[in-house]
Amino acid sequence: MNVVGIVAEYNPFHNGHLYHMESARKITNCEAVVVAMSGSFCQRGEPAIIDKFSRAEAALQCGADLVLELPFCFAVQDAGGFAKGAVSLLSRTGVVTDIVFGSESGNLEALSKMAHVLVEQPPPFPELIHKELKKGLSFPNARKKALLAFFQTTSELNSQDVLSIEKSNDILGLEYVKALIELSLSMKPHVVKRVGANYLSPKFSGTFSSATAIRESILCGRWDNVSQSVPKKSLNIISRELNEGRGPVTLRNMESLILSSLRLKSRRELENIYGFSEGLEKRFIKCAAKAGTLEEFFKCVNSKRFTLSKIKRLSLFSFFNLDREFMEKSNKEGPQYLRVLGFNTKGQNLLSKMRKRSEVPVISVCSSYRKIIEKALDDTSRRYRINPQLFERQLRMDIAATAIHSLLFPNKSQRSGEWDFLKHPTILG
Amino acid sequence: MNVVGIVAEYNPFHNGHLYHMESARKITNCEAVVVAMSGSFCQRGEPAIIDKFSRAEAALQCGADLVLELPFCFAVQDAGGFAKGAVSLLSRTGVVTDIVFGSESGNLEALSKMAHVLVEQPPPFPELIHKELKKGLSFPNARKKALLAFFQTTSELNSQDVLSIEKSNDILGLEYVKALIELSLSMKPHVVKRVGANYLSPKFSGTFSSATAIRESILCGRWDNVSQSVPKKSLNIISRELNEGRGPVTLRNMESLILSSLRLKSRRELENIYGFSEGLEKRFIKCAAKAGTLEEFFKCVNSKRFTLSKIKRLSLFSFFNLDREFMEKSNKEGPQYLRVLGFNTKGQNLLSKMRKRSEVPVISVCSSYRKIIEKALDDTSRRYRINPQLFERQLRMDIAATAIHSLLFPNKSQRSGEWDFLKHPTILG
Repeated sequence: MNVVGIVAEYNPFHNGHLYHMESARKITNCEAVVVAMSGSFCQRGEPAIIDKFSRAEAALQCGADLVLELPFCFAVQDAGGFAKGAVSLLSRTGVVTDIVFGSESGNLEALSKMAHVLVEQPPPFPELIHKELKKGLSFPNARKKALLAFFQTTSELNSQDVLSIEKSNDILGLEYVKALIELSLSMKPHVVKRVGANYLSPKFSGTFSSATAIRESILCGRWDNVSQSVPKKSLNIISRELNEGRGPVTLRNMESLILSSLRLKSRRELENIYGFSEGLEKRFIKCAAKAGTLEEFFKCVNSKRFTLSKIKRLSLFSFFNLDREFMEKSNKEGPQYLRVLGFNTKGQNLLSKMRKRSEVPVISVCSSYRKIIEKALDDTSRRYRINPQLFERQLRMDIAATAIHSLLFPNKSQRSGEWDFLKHPTILG
Repeated sequence: MNVVGIVAEYNPFHNGHLYHMESARKITNCEAVVVAMSGSFCQRGEPAIIDKFSRAEAALQCGADLVLELPFCFAVQDAGGFAKGAVSLLSRTGVVTDIVFGSESGNLEALSKMAHVLVEQPPPFPELIHKELKKGLSFPNARKKALLAFFQTTSELNSQDVLSIEKSNDILGLEYVKALIELSLSMKPHVVKRVGANYLSPKFSGTFSSATAIRESILCGRWDNVSQSVPKKSLNIISRELNEGRGPVTLRNMESLILSSLRLKSRRELENIYGFSEGLEKRFIKCAAKAGTLEEFFKCVNSKRFTLSKIKRLSLFSFFNLDREFMEKSNKEGPQYLRVLGFNTKGQNLLSKMRKRSEVPVISVCSSYRKIIEKALDDTSRRYRINPQLFERQLRMDIAATAIHSLLFPNKSQRSGEWDFLKHPTILG
């Protein structure tokens, strides 16, 4: 039985996502679709525009069979950490056989060959990249130049193929394939050629607009645009959430939270946060003191060496106190549980299988997590190889992220910090 | 030469404060008035309605000669910690000879005798209080009952005198006298009988309204009330600050800051914060998760055993990460510097004297604090007995408190976190 895995943010669920899901079914001829979805915060270092429960619901209504939450500590990492966490999560279900991701180039062969070089580092690749870095190039640029030079010597891939891998979905795709190789996973990768707008394009462009453009339309109240670019079922859920005052949630709502947390941190404390290096902690502290708004802050920190997304991510790492040790351990040991956000009948059957086969425990209700840890540790079959401290910290961070996300809701009566305990998985009949 | 010390918050500076200052001059026939003033946050666990620089300016314009900042770590403590920090600060100037505080009873004899018993704990006082506490009384109530019983045995003070000490200024006054005894200081205490409204009275009552009532009037835009109850010069400063969008600052502005900081803390982290005991950390975490607003949070945490002010203070302790070790060390070793917020010509002369006599270094400009520490440690006369780590932490907390306070300004262009470096002491010609 083929079960296809998809990694997504659904922020919000739009026509491009629907197309991707339907293509994934077609390509793999699968029996079920499992989604690893970001929770309350996304990979660009921002809170999701509506909560994870509603986004999972939209995904189910639009064809997903089972939605799992990608733990916060992976969801807010750069492409590499995000992809590795997500691929590992899908693999640990024990049931996912294929993985389908979007790609601008649609060139899986190029992605695969490049991924092998990046993981295996065959000579002379290490020297080539070292040389480019020494010239002062940024890491992505140095990597691209080194790959070009490498494939010129082996002629396994021509320059055009190498150069075709440059847009955001392909960059992420490269990381998915790398993760499959690094973790020696047998899930089979496939690509769906992306239709419509570039992922990052902020311009609204009709039926296949980017999530960025759709979020902008939501914020400006351009509902004509939104309804053109998201499936009806997703639109209904977005409208419901906004009517209830549980959105739109934006990074701007976190302005004083982020600036205050940085103003209270010492350089030493910031040095201990994951991702701070090369004097960035000094720069962050100086800029948080100077800037009165997030915009000023980002402008102040900005430099050629760092993308805006990286700065936003680091701001979140600092706000949530994601220390180096926890994050490195998470990256090494992977997701410690499979948190179920919703499923349909097919998904339920899949869940029964997962409960027997998965490498880590399945969580449907957060409040019982201590019992789940105990049971997993007691398991005489020794199926699970979880680290109880890491399990607890990862889950506590998911819960904290959701508790902060809800604090950003416009409607004060909805700002409970207990949604993760109050909400049960969505079950679609 | 008599120099009188006053402890104040001036939140904002009102007619009662003017009356107090003028009475203090008369009673002591002093040559100068030194004020130990709270900085960005006040003893009731709230941010000051306008910033410390403006409040110091108002005090100078209304007759103070020198205004020093009571470090944040003392300014936000309960009556005992606040009073001890302030009295110690005034004493460490080396020039203050007298201290004048407000009192509802005006009964210095009662205050003094009671303070001696509380500090020296002569038998059978310890047993008496133990007995009352065992009955389940709150500490203030048990203390009062034990004092009554104690003075019945010694007849040094009659019951009426003991019972007369019950209002907020007297309670604070008791702490000032206790601090003088505990620290063996020679400054002479005096009381000014309070006129007009009770300190805590939220009702506006004309010329002598409470600071609470005046803040309420400011928030409601009742400028007729405000102008009736504060000196013209103070009114002008308040108006200027509000016109510039640097106020009014209220605890409500900190709603998401406080709730988010609590939602991110583990029980173990909260246990390490000063003042959390008796399971309060569990209660705080539970309530911060449940409550969507500060009002709901306070309601949830509230119990007979804790006043609202205590809950607000603890919320600040948690937000600012005031750990047990730092606070206990501060209480033991006292203020490590004298931070000058402003002075007039007389104050300037006093400052020159202070620079020769004070027990701790004088700081006029924050940015030079590292040099000040070095110089103090190098001082061959060994006049200073400062703890450099504690000095730095206390000052960094003052700076952080001001950086958070300014983040709460309505006008975003004023939200710099560097006011402590940008502002020099106010000098009145």
